[in-house]
Amino acid sequence: MAPPGIGDSVEGVHAVAAALAAGRVRRLLVEESRLDALSDLVDAATSAGATIETVGDVRDRAATSAPQGVVAICRPMPDAGIDGVVGAVDPPAVVVLDRLEDPRNVGAIARSAVAAGVLGLVVPTHRSAPLGATAFKAAAGALEHMAITQVSSVADAVKRLSDRDVWTVGLDSDGDRPLFGLDLLTAPVAVVVGAEGAGLSRLVRDRVDVVASIPISPMVESLNASVAASLAVFEVARVRAAG
Amino acid sequence: MAPPGIGDSVEGVHAVAAALAAGRVRRLLVEESRLDALSDLVDAATSAGATIETVGDVRDRAATSAPQGVVAICRPMPDAGIDGVVGAVDPPAVVVLDRLEDPRNVGAIARSAVAAGVLGLVVPTHRSAPLGATAFKAAAGALEHMAITQVSSVADAVKRLSDRDVWTVGLDSDGDRPLFGLDLLTAPVAVVVGAEGAGLSRLVRDRVDVVASIPISPMVESLNASVAASLAVFEVARVRAAG
Repeated sequence: MAPPGIGDSVEGVHAVAAALAAGRVRRLLVEESRLDALSDLVDAATSAGATIETVGDVRDRAATSAPQGVVAICRPMPDAGIDGVVGAVDPPAVVVLDRLEDPRNVGAIARSAVAAGVLGLVVPTHRSAPLGATAFKAAAGALEHMAITQVSSVADAVKRLSDRDVWTVGLDSDGDRPLFGLDLLTAPVAVVVGAEGAGLSRLVRDRVDVVASIPISPMVESLNASVAASLAVFEVARVRAAG
Repeated sequence: MAPPGIGDSVEGVHAVAAALAAGRVRRLLVEESRLDALSDLVDAATSAGATIETVGDVRDRAATSAPQGVVAICRPMPDAGIDGVVGAVDPPAVVVLDRLEDPRNVGAIARSAVAAGVLGLVVPTHRSAPLGATAFKAAAGALEHMAITQVSSVADAVKRLSDRDVWTVGLDSDGDRPLFGLDLLTAPVAVVVGAEGAGLSRLVRDRVDVVASIPISPMVESLNASVAASLAVFEVARVRAAG
């Protein structure tokens, strides 16, 4: 079975505005009591040729608990393929998510990645948080700016990135090199982020070029997955700006 | 009226274990169906002389939606005062929260701060997310390791930090210097984080020594408040490790 389309349903004011700007919205469900407050979105959707549907309580049609009165049914984002992900920015800068469980973390990481200029995203189709309404809402529009590919195997995707001369850097708490100041971040690079708690899967860990760790105090067990990923993508931006 | 005690109620397995390790738990409420799974916590609480109370559904007594079967009623953490906050680590490293609204952000920032070795925390008593069960749960135990003071005025706290030769660095999207590579981070320093959306309050912005910004792509409007704060505390750690 094909995975659900990337971002085929989007909720919340920021995420819907970004999907509209990307020209993806086919149908807009708006809560009747919020029609005035959301008139800018409704106007933009009308101009874009989308169907507007007024509903009593949009939460009946929403996947998130706070859709802010609006749900957009969208044309899915295209799957960019590995080449599209590598070509999204020059020099290539990619983030690979190895089976994250919480779609809010996926969205938060996308927001930080785009902010840091990292515009390629690789996510697994299975055993991973979906690229659905929750992830898009947490990303506050950022996912629309990424070149995204869904892959059946993260380990295989790491190999295909290597074949295209992209350095792959896995993040793990017991990595053998500190993340900060890694000079290879100026080269084409992909940061590979492991699952909350479990970290990188064994095969992925064996395949990446470098396993890097963020030095932390022994007083805490670990960093939040989206914080760790945010530190990594901004380290790419920092090293590149300084280089 | 005095503000509620810092951490006088703590929920969730990690946060309760940390409160027990800190010797603060007076009474432990445990869900009957989880007694086996939580036996380590119950044993530790019993050894510490806490009262154990078995309840049907601990969520009736919980402030968070997922207390994981356990709520601890605690002696509040002491207020460390400005001097305690400044003296928590050498050279001093403090984070000041200017009216954050979401207690999960407060907890997430504490977790990152402790991970980065920033052990002083200043929070306002009013118009700010409380240091209650939600913040302690999001911090996953980290708040127990901090020297914390609650203040009636953040602007006044900034002045008192300056009087003690601590540099104050406000984070704001239109700051006049980039955060990355700020050499004064090796000196005694306090990072001041503004509210989600609204940013630093006017008076605080005028009082800090430097307003620094994190350079981000124009494709996103802003960073998540806890991500911005995490980047700042780890920049302190990075600059100090390199210095």
